[in-house]
Parts: sequence; C-alpha cells; structure tokens
Amino acid sequence: MTVIYDRVALIGLGLIAGSMAHAMRAGGLAGHITGYARSAETRQIAQEIDLCDSVHDNLADAVKDADLVVLAVPVGAMGSVMAEIAPHLAKGATVTDVGSVKQSVIDAVAPHIPDGVHFVPGHPLAGTEHSGPRAGFATLFVNRWWLLTPLPDSVETAVARLDRLITAMGAKTDRMEPTHHDLVLSVTSHVPHLIAYTMVGVADHLGRVTDEEVIQYSAAGFRDFTRIAASDPTMWRDVFLHNKDATLDILGRFTEELFVLQRAIRMGDGQQLHDYFTRTRAIRRGIIDAGQDTSVPDFGRTPGAQPAE
Amino acid sequence: MTVIYDRVALIGLGLIAGSMAHAMRAGGLAGHITGYARSAETRQIAQEIDLCDSVHDNLADAVKDADLVVLAVPVGAMGSVMAEIAPHLAKGATVTDVGSVKQSVIDAVAPHIPDGVHFVPGHPLAGTEHSGPRAGFATLFVNRWWLLTPLPDSVETAVARLDRLITAMGAKTDRMEPTHHDLVLSVTSHVPHLIAYTMVGVADHLGRVTDEEVIQYSAAGFRDFTRIAASDPTMWRDVFLHNKDATLDILGRFTEELFVLQRAIRMGDGQQLHDYFTRTRAIRRGIIDAGQDTSVPDFGRTPGAQPAE
Repeated sequence: MTVIYDRVALIGLGLIAGSMAHAMRAGGLAGHITGYARSAETRQIAQEIDLCDSVHDNLADAVKDADLVVLAVPVGAMGSVMAEIAPHLAKGATVTDVGSVKQSVIDAVAPHIPDGVHFVPGHPLAGTEHSGPRAGFATLFVNRWWLLTPLPDSVETAVARLDRLITAMGAKTDRMEPTHHDLVLSVTSHVPHLIAYTMVGVADHLGRVTDEEVIQYSAAGFRDFTRIAASDPTMWRDVFLHNKDATLDILGRFTEELFVLQRAIRMGDGQQLHDYFTRTRAIRRGIIDAGQDTSVPDFGRTPGAQPAE
Repeated sequence: MTVIYDRVALIGLGLIAGSMAHAMRAGGLAGHITGYARSAETRQIAQEIDLCDSVHDNLADAVKDADLVVLAVPVGAMGSVMAEIAPHLAKGATVTDVGSVKQSVIDAVAPHIPDGVHFVPGHPLAGTEHSGPRAGFATLFVNRWWLLTPLPDSVETAVARLDRLITAMGAKTDRMEPTHHDLVLSVTSHVPHLIAYTMVGVADHLGRVTDEEVIQYSAAGFRDFTRIAASDPTMWRDVFLHNKDATLDILGRFTEELFVLQRAIRMGDGQQLHDYFTRTRAIRRGIIDAGQDTSVPDFGRTPGAQPAE
C-alpha cells in the first residue's frame, strides 16, 4: 500500500475512470481522488456510490493541485477538455489519457500542455460492453495490457511513475509508437467492432427474418457479435472518426479477403475454404497460451462445460 | 428416467453426438447407445472414455435394430452415409440429423429413406469451439434451441417422440420450414462465422503488425472473433458450400451495409455512425432478456466483474 500520487483527478467518470478509482482505492495508491463529469446525473451517481473522494462540477476545481490528471472522455472531446484545464494545472503534474486512439489525441492535447507539465498518453486494453459510472470494478485491469505511447520529449521519471501506478492496478505495460498503436488496435479492436456493429445491423434490417428469430436463435455465433455491438456509441463513433486512416486501410484488406472467400463459396472451392479455416485456428491457440483469454469452451457460458484439455 | 428409444445409433462421434451420449445416459433416455466413427482414432478414444455402450467400425452393425439413428457427420457426408445405412435400417426406425443446414441435407438424405422408416431433420443450436469425441458434455443442450424441420409427409408420432428425447436432454424445440431455417441460420451463425474467419485471416496476413502483437493485444474485441474462428474447419467448409444461396445473399447485404459505414467514416459523418451504433444496442438487450446469453460483463471472463444491474 504505497501512495504513488497524492491527488489524482479523473476527468470523465465512465467504465475506465470508475475502475481506476476502485483499483486505486483497493491498493491505497492515491492520497485523494477527485472526479469530474459533464453530466449532472453522472456526478450524482458518482456521489451516491462514493466513487471518488470529491466530485466536482467544474474542471478547474477538479484538477487543482492534482499531480495526476486522467483524461477519460471520448477521444473527440480530449482537445477541448485539455484546453480548458491547462491554466489550472499544477507545476510538475502529469496528464495522461485513456483514449483508444493515440496519434489524434496527441495532436489535439499536446499543443495545450503548459510548460512544466508532463504528458504521457496511454491506452488500457480493457473494458466490457457496459458503460457509465456504475460499470467500473477494481479488477478490470488485472492481467490486461496498458499501452503507453510517450512523446520524444517525455520525461522518463514521469513515465516511470505512471507506469508504477498502472502496474500496481494489476495491468502489464508496454510502450509503442503512437501511429503503430493505432494500426495494431485497428486490427485487434476497431475493425472487429465495426464489423460486429454491421452484422447486427444487417440482422436488424432483414425483413424476412424477424427480430424475435434473430434473438431466440442467436446462440450459434451471432450473440458474440451483439455483445461487442452493445458498446458505448459515442466512444466508438469517436474512435472511427479519429483513427480514420488505419480503419479504412484494414477495412479494405478485410473486404478484399472476404471477397476471396465469397468467390470460393460461389465456385464451390472447398479446399480453399478448409485451408483458410485451418490456419485461423492457430491464432486462437496463441491467444490462450498468452493468457489473454480462457480456454474453457464457449467462454464458460454454457453450464457444465468442462475446461479444455 | 424414462427410456424413450431402446437403441440409439450415433453416426459420427464429435461434439454433438458425444454430448447426446452424455445427456441420454444422464437422463436414462436410451436403452443402448451404439456409436460409429469413420476414423479408427476416434473409435479408440470413444472406447477409452466409454462414450457409448458399443462402438462399431462399420455402419451396418451400428444401425442394426436401432429405433433412432442420428446422423452427426459433416453436412457434405450426410447423403453417402444415408445411402450406405439404408438397407440395414429396422422397420419403424426414425432417422434424424444434426446438420447446420437443412434443405441440402433433406435433398441428399430423403431419397435414400426406405419405406416404413421416418426421417425427421433437426439442428441443435448448441456447440463450442471444441470438436472431437472428448469435447462433449451432458449439459450442452440445456436451455438451447433444437430446431426440427419435418417434411410434409413426416408422421407426427415419430416427430413427437424425437421431440420428447430432445426436451428430456434439456433443449427447447421449435419447428421451422427448411429453407427459412437456412436463411435464419445464415444470419445468426453462418455469416458471422465467415466474417470471424476473415478478420482473423486479415490479422494473420498483416506484415506490419506482428503475430505476437495481435495475440498480446487481442483482448479489445478481436479475441471473440478468434474463438469463433477456431471452430471445426470441415464442418464449416460444408456449411458454406451447402447453404450457398443464403450465405451469398446475407454476405451481399453485409458488404452493402459495411460500405455505408465505411463511407460515413471517410466523410466524417459522426451522426450516422452514432445512430447506427445506438440501434444495435437494443438487440443485445433482447438476447439477454430471452435468456440466450449472460448479462455478466465480458461474459464473466474478467476476474471480479460484477453482474450487470
């Protein structure tokens, strides 16, 4: 139980900031946690459930004297929030963010960082399909990656201190170049989300298949897509608009690949399909071996399923 | 514990047949269970783990005197297996199948059904990403749908008896017209699987992102796709080849829809994206309300995640 920051300001009180509050309290990592949310309803819930030590209705009060400020708002709002808090930041403070896109956040935030304040962009690869101030929990980050994309002029002691906080919350940290981060995440997260949203939308539109049938008979694959497609709409709108180039690049590759498989189905080329489906199995094995998912069949949702051998 | 069939023959000893064996034994639903598998290795494992009361290396012995024969082989093999067992079936026996596609199985199997034998096609909407004789478990079908697509000349007493067996294994049954089944399943299962395979394939090919990065940072959405894309390649090859028309229809709609969202990203149309992502949330809620998935965040994979309110 070592206090790593005396005063942490959480700007935006959704799933990630809420989970940070729970995790920092569980580990005694922060002396005092302040919280700010734009919505009065969110602030009220945060107070009701005692999410932070103090909840503020203006940004200046929330960040005053903080030695760590966490920007946990949608990616598209980072720049304006940063511009508003800049005059109120303490000398020597560190600003970090938890946005799913890094280069555009850096472009929006970095110009507003005052002299003597450190900016260390970050992205926890953790979340659930739930959002809002009640969605957080202390163990969200356990065994998950938290990527840091420090700038060329980032001060190493500031980066290392943030790294200690993140590690103390249970996460594993790695450092990455911002545009490379955006490409990797477009593959592992952004495009999969867009595809899931699209598939659920197709089902929603299909007149010959009623909504009730789609819902009742969803267990055969579709329901996994609906979980992903239940994620926060504002967050995801901003992700796509702010990681446009990588998203369009990977989407192009995806469509190309899909057309190859579609043609194999049309032509009846079973060998090509079988070869393709065999190769993709190996990646799943790698993810389980790396401890990033459970090997229990069906994620353990099916009652009575035994762990795989 | 009421015996519903005196002698049940399981043809093919994979996840579904294996789970049926476990479930029928747990419920005392079958007097004797025979098993057949083409592969000597599968037969040996089935004997080792005592999956059936008797394991046979030829189809004629396996189906002899059976009053229920379950075809649990890949969809593309149903017709030839049926042709081979036809001369050995007992008068009054019922043949069912568990294929994921119904019309093409009916086209392949029905012509071989002898006079005095009942054919009741079926499809359990249950499974995991694991396959083979060790993958089955008794509760696989609990609270899952098992769709029956009887033919116009199916004898109702034969359909009702199979229905009783399925219900006794814990599943819920419904009846559907075969081509409508194939369309519904192309939406809820077949196309989602193809898309997941494709996305995992894109990640596999991408030179600028290493395999290790894809695996390490998969938790943000991609890993759900890899679970689906780890399913049995032979089974899925046959599904796409035998449900070609519905798959191509739904794939066409999917691509169309994806292009609309891709254009919105390119044009920066945030409102269109936000509206789309908001609509898809409702379908998820419907699936949870229908008891077809868990509402626990992240399927309960994340340690310490609390049930949603």
